Amino acid sequence: MSTCYITRRETFNAAHKLWREDWTLEKNEEVFGRCSNRNWHGHNFTLFVTVKGLPNPDTGFIINLKDLSSIIKDLVIEPLDHKNLNLDVPFMAGILASTENLVIEIWNILKSPVQKAGGELAKIKLIETENNFVEYYGGNEPY
Amino acid sequence: MSTCYITRRETFNAAHKLWREDWTLEKNEEVFGRCSNRNWHGHNFTLFVTVKGLPNPDTGFIINLKDLSSIIKDLVIEPLDHKNLNLDVPFMAGILASTENLVIEIWNILKSPVQKAGGELAKIKLIETENNFVEYYGGNEPY
Amino acid sequence: MSTCYITRRETFNAAHKLWREDWTLEKNEEVFGRCSNRNWHGHNFTLFVTVKGLPNPDTGFIINLKDLSSIIKDLVIEPLDHKNLNLDVPFMAGILASTENLVIEIWNILKSPVQKAGGELAKIKLIETENNFVEYYGGNEPY
Amino acid sequence: MSTCYITRRETFNAAHKLWREDWTLEKNEEVFGRCSNRNWHGHNFTLFVTVKGLPNPDTGFIINLKDLSSIIKDLVIEPLDHKNLNLDVPFMAGILASTENLVIEIWNILKSPVQKAGGELAKIKLIETENNFVEYYGGNEPY
Amino acid sequence: MSTCYITRRETFNAAHKLWREDWTLEKNEEVFGRCSNRNWHGHNFTLFVTVKGLPNPDTGFIINLKDLSSIIKDLVIEPLDHKNLNLDVPFMAGILASTENLVIEIWNILKSPVQKAGGELAKIKLIETENNFVEYYGGNEPY
Amino acid sequence: MSTCYITRRETFNAAHKLWREDWTLEKNEEVFGRCSNRNWHGHNFTLFVTVKGLPNPDTGFIINLKDLSSIIKDLVIEPLDHKNLNLDVPFMAGILASTENLVIEIWNILKSPVQKAGGELAKIKLIETENNFVEYYGGNEPY
Repeated sequence: MSTCYITRRETFNAAHKLWREDWTLEKNEEVFGRCSNRNWHGHNFTLFVTVKGLPNPDTGFIINLKDLSSIIKDLVIEPLDHKNLNLDVPFMAGILASTENLVIEIWNILKSPVQKAGGELAKIKLIETENNFVEYYGGNEPY
Repeated sequence: MSTCYITRRETFNAAHKLWREDWTLEKNEEVFGRCSNRNWHGHNFTLFVTVKGLPNPDTGFIINLKDLSSIIKDLVIEPLDHKNLNLDVPFMAGILASTENLVIEIWNILKSPVQKAGGELAKIKLIETENNFVEYYGGNEPY
Repeated sequence: MSTCYITRRETFNAAHKLWREDWTLEKNEEVFGRCSNRNWHGHNFTLFVTVKGLPNPDTGFIINLKDLSSIIKDLVIEPLDHKNLNLDVPFMAGILASTENLVIEIWNILKSPVQKAGGELAKIKLIETENNFVEYYGGNEPY
Repeated sequence: MSTCYITRRETFNAAHKLWREDWTLEKNEEVFGRCSNRNWHGHNFTLFVTVKGLPNPDTGFIINLKDLSSIIKDLVIEPLDHKNLNLDVPFMAGILASTENLVIEIWNILKSPVQKAGGELAKIKLIETENNFVEYYGGNEPY
Repeated sequence: MSTCYITRRETFNAAHKLWREDWTLEKNEEVFGRCSNRNWHGHNFTLFVTVKGLPNPDTGFIINLKDLSSIIKDLVIEPLDHKNLNLDVPFMAGILASTENLVIEIWNILKSPVQKAGGELAKIKLIETENNFVEYYGGNEPY
Repeated sequence: MSTCYITRRETFNAAHKLWREDWTLEKNEEVFGRCSNRNWHGHNFTLFVTVKGLPNPDTGFIINLKDLSSIIKDLVIEPLDHKNLNLDVPFMAGILASTENLVIEIWNILKSPVQKAGGELAKIKLIETENNFVEYYGGNEPY
């Protein structure tokens, strides 16, 4: 079988802080270091969304990248870009704004719409800085 | 066991279009968008070929990268580089020139020669633009 | 004086060939090598447009990047993206499609509109492949 | 004469917004677009500091990069990294947090310390996103 | 389950050669090519260390990247950076300095300390040049 | 006038150390730090060679990149690639192997051959690591 994996890259910029209101300043700094700065800091995030499937014999496509890009932009980039992850993003409300938690929420948002567009979501990768990134496979076996 | 995966990068430039002769201009544009421009467009493609195996105790190599590079250049880069994927490439004749289909054909071409050189082809990754790439594991379980 | 230089990056994909109708096939191949393939090849081009000026005390901007991006997209990216440089691009008609010539024409197109938007065009840089790029300063002293 | 230019790269992450208190919300959004989000956004900034000089015959160095890196880290990265450009940075107090203005202030901070370390500051380049960056030569003729 | 994979990037520079004392010069050159130069050559190596786990509900972290970075720097970067892989590195003593062998040793060094820090080592990736890299999953099923 | 600048990228890997025989070990370590490791270290160097000129009306070229690439490979890459800068490179004999000194020697080697090929050498840029690079304009006014 010819299962392929296609990946679309999108980018967004956002502010955040790693901070728990139920911890003291000292505890926040001890655990989260510079990321706990109360006045926020921010990143250029790079998002990779991977979809698996068989190429459609009519088009050669697993999924039309125009459709995939539209889904990602409407559901993920629009609510995140030039926003504050802690204050502005409905789907992150009440969730600690770590990259791990953000990746899981992005998966949860994209899974069904990608399926409706004919693909199967396989992986979310989110690069926070050149020195760290997180990958998530939706609790499926990774690939 | 010490199974490792080694990857060689090669590059090529090519023209193509996404176009079906049995579809109208309007249908081609609707499905393939700007990629259906009848006068072609093109890309700098970046190809990653991954081979798995145990490091040879004599050399520390899974496969000699000089050999792997020669195989890729002779069988894939030479027929694709500075060519038109729709018109010039024997192994793409009659196949819609999508990245997905191209990746599958590159796998089919490389699988046996890599095996003869002592390795096992594990993955083909082809970057079409900075915003999209396709991966193929030959129908094996991905990794 | 606080003259700054701000640069906007845009990308486009295009097909082209280096070919002179008044030369034989042999002569074309001798001079232009693989770039003379009659069925075209192509690239992912990366364009950098640099504008100089003093930051506006009201905005901190030399030029509003939204305006600069719109100018570049309307006048340069739209006519070049997913096109054939030899066949589809009015401002390249009758001009050999080398990167050098393309850069000069992009300068000529952008110079006045950038000036009307309040900036001064300083440099065009066009990356054709990871191994070569061309820069042009409009015949002014380079910087 | 063998004047060379050596460049050191450093990185920092920060939040900011483009916002004037003396403008209405509407006016801020009209001019600064998404960058005016009142709850901030942020970037991974990449800073390039270029120093000119003659290689010292004893060391082959224009300036010792350990010294240059220490100067940049102490005077620029420490006050900017994981900070809010509008709220946390003494040398940006009262200054609109555009990339242009930030680059000029970084120049002003580094000029004398670089000179004391035996070099001559030649250029500051600051990349805000993959699509835009600003360069500043201190009001000298650019190079 | 929400198993995520987080990756930390670190870099080091080192000299090495591919050379067997029990082979003739000719045999070494035949197998190892230019990499057998007796006076050494070198690389900027880029190391990616991937850890899997569940995000801690208190912190949103699989593993604190400050801890992970310290472990990697102390145990891997410190002994490798600005060193000779054949002469200076205790954990490479008597081992042919191929990228494959180096990756396996880095895995062996990091596995337990990462576990003690609360994570599970999932993958080591080592980039030797822009054209080749090696990945190792510790003999586990790759992902 | 339509003076353009075209740049060719080439790469090489090499070992070196920063070390003076007439200094003590302590003095070498004090000045050169980790770069003084007596058993060498190494880098993936990236070289950018820039040539200025007018596009030839017949070809659209400042200089044929095939010719420029051959000159660079024969005169610079061949003697440097997979070599030891201190021991193996005739044109670096007796010269401290700093990036500054290496760039100056590469300029001196390329200047005449580039001129014979119809171009004018404008700039040499050599990237040693992602964090530092050196540029040289041959003692001419930089651009």
